Amino acid sequence: MAEIQEFDSIEEILEKLPKNECDTVKRVLYGKGTDDLNLPQKPNALSEKYNIQLLGCRFSCNKEELRPPRIVRVGLFQHKTPLPTWSAIKEMREAVFKMASEALEVAALSGVNVFCFQEAWNMPFAFCTREKQHWCEYAEIAEHGSTTSFLKELAKRYNMVIISPILERDEVHNDTIWNTAVVIDNHGDYLGKHRKNHIPRVGDFNESTYYFEGNTGHPVFKTEFGKLAINICYGRHHPLNWLGFGLNGAEIVFNPSATVGQLSEPLWGIEARNAAIANGYYACAINRVGTETFANEFTSGDGKPAHKDFGHFYGSSYIAAPNGSRTPGLSRTSNGLLVAELDLNLCRQVKDHWGFQMTQRLDMYADLLTEAIKPDYTPQVISKTT
Amino acid sequence: MAEIQEFDSIEEILEKLPKNECDTVKRVLYGKGTDDLNLPQKPNALSEKYNIQLLGCRFSCNKEELRPPRIVRVGLFQHKTPLPTWSAIKEMREAVFKMASEALEVAALSGVNVFCFQEAWNMPFAFCTREKQHWCEYAEIAEHGSTTSFLKELAKRYNMVIISPILERDEVHNDTIWNTAVVIDNHGDYLGKHRKNHIPRVGDFNESTYYFEGNTGHPVFKTEFGKLAINICYGRHHPLNWLGFGLNGAEIVFNPSATVGQLSEPLWGIEARNAAIANGYYACAINRVGTETFANEFTSGDGKPAHKDFGHFYGSSYIAAPNGSRTPGLSRTSNGLLVAELDLNLCRQVKDHWGFQMTQRLDMYADLLTEAIKPDYTPQVISKTT
Repeated sequence: MAEIQEFDSIEEILEKLPKNECDTVKRVLYGKGTDDLNLPQKPNALSEKYNIQLLGCRFSCNKEELRPPRIVRVGLFQHKTPLPTWSAIKEMREAVFKMASEALEVAALSGVNVFCFQEAWNMPFAFCTREKQHWCEYAEIAEHGSTTSFLKELAKRYNMVIISPILERDEVHNDTIWNTAVVIDNHGDYLGKHRKNHIPRVGDFNESTYYFEGNTGHPVFKTEFGKLAINICYGRHHPLNWLGFGLNGAEIVFNPSATVGQLSEPLWGIEARNAAIANGYYACAINRVGTETFANEFTSGDGKPAHKDFGHFYGSSYIAAPNGSRTPGLSRTSNGLLVAELDLNLCRQVKDHWGFQMTQRLDMYADLLTEAIKPDYTPQVISKTT
Repeated sequence: MAEIQEFDSIEEILEKLPKNECDTVKRVLYGKGTDDLNLPQKPNALSEKYNIQLLGCRFSCNKEELRPPRIVRVGLFQHKTPLPTWSAIKEMREAVFKMASEALEVAALSGVNVFCFQEAWNMPFAFCTREKQHWCEYAEIAEHGSTTSFLKELAKRYNMVIISPILERDEVHNDTIWNTAVVIDNHGDYLGKHRKNHIPRVGDFNESTYYFEGNTGHPVFKTEFGKLAINICYGRHHPLNWLGFGLNGAEIVFNPSATVGQLSEPLWGIEARNAAIANGYYACAINRVGTETFANEFTSGDGKPAHKDFGHFYGSSYIAAPNGSRTPGLSRTSNGLLVAELDLNLCRQVKDHWGFQMTQRLDMYADLLTEAIKPDYTPQVISKTT
């Protein structure tokens, strides 16, 4: 199959418009947008050396009288799997840890306080294969597996909260496997974990073959850099999942993902951003990048012949603010680190201004959902009775 | 104040890009998009005469073996208030009814089956003024007021379902005023009504001064042209409101709106489209157009001096399909009728494909909301216990 020439980003194309018209389009598409965040020379030089696109943005926020600004820098890292998918697990781990070390070094030099990886960041996204052998070996104990241990050290060194989405092996519960995000605090201590709530069964996303719906609710992690939560991948299609983290007080919700192709890309800019608007928090969408090819062929449930690749993970990681403004996306084709400076005070400011929370009428919906889940629920339908 | 020169549409600007790059941008922004729907010469000529932009689109849908296609044409009409806001109510009504007659004539000639007006379509959007006198006189009995009676006749003549969002005067309940959408079926009979669930208190949207949160739940209206629902204006910021109509089986949800300015415009393309994706139905967003100036000055709660206009209603009405594709927007500056042909079968096809409904875990959220509404609810927060 001839490789499709992927373009780098929408923003790059829009820049070809006359400046005033480009600005108009961006105003409608991206809201207030962000200012450039000037980063020091050192991380810029290093990111070039490591072949990581480095993009710095800053969201604006009003000053308040009673609360000082609560400025946080978040870092979203999107990356390709560094070795062929059929590499030995130990070699893969070494290569992906090296890549992570480099990204964390650039992030630390850029002043990042909270860093988040993409979904199942330390392995190929092998769930298209429906094979168990070897892939399940990537699953680790959340609290002290290889990946968590590796990151604890760096979190402490860099005084950085690190969110690490991995496959979790739950030995306490009979070797159940979960899709889990581990939160390590800036002192290098394990803070907690969240298990993916909604598991896809579509196309090559055969994840229900590997792990079950999460049982950790909608936890919010209180850190020195704000109240954080994680909505893992397919959960971004579920407004109720986003709402759950909002109800528990999240100020930043990360959406570590792995998604491909022409079908989901038009949804990518919509869902996390809608969640930021509806729930009054920052939403950080992270997608992996590149094409992953596997040793054995597999089919995709689309009537097409067996093949060996998962399609193109289109990157395009971005952050949306509660007021609807957003950053540009990272590249669709290369490793990248998005560093954004934001003021957590904006969350409450927007809630006060728009009033979406005050007008939410949750009691009505608690009743509606309680009724709707009954097997004999009768939908509220009005039809002509003649 | 010098009038700001408003541009006509984002799409018009994007067309200035080289064709292949314009296509790329549109693919990412709009998904599969729509094909042109060729409309006969007659409605085209009439719409020109009446100064109404007429835009025809068609969504694609797979053929099924067991169900024949269920093709429906919907018409969204966006318009300016035809007379100065201080005109006599009877004169205003006459003028706006004349305009509606013209739009309905064009719609009928375009084969429209279901027609929807913008929010409070038969009056100025006067809620910025906080004045009651005269404005409350626009409120009518939903079942047989002047507007409903006028439309019943046309609905029957054109064999068309008409959705008519008006101010409702509820004489049975002590002259309570509601913001209500009336549904008239294609035989000219009153089918039912829905009252706006979420009422804004932001900027010039002082609607809570005039009417209260609706008490009609989330009704779906079963018609010969599909199962329809109406999410009125500010309800589009509430994912739970969209969900309610989905739970009751809506196939098309109309969002008659009136919204202005740079703050909400970046949200406009996001929210109704997100709802279509999340709930597996067509979402039809309709905004009024033009600038409305009032006789008396008013303030907007933004620290700025008193003034007499509401800002620019930016039109841009559009339709999003359950697969995330959408039509272009109507003009930002002129009256317009968007006619879209769609196949209701797409709703179930997309639900089967993506599986968002099957994986929704409503039971978990019924429990969460039931807990969250308790005054002593303790959010699920994980913090270091040291």
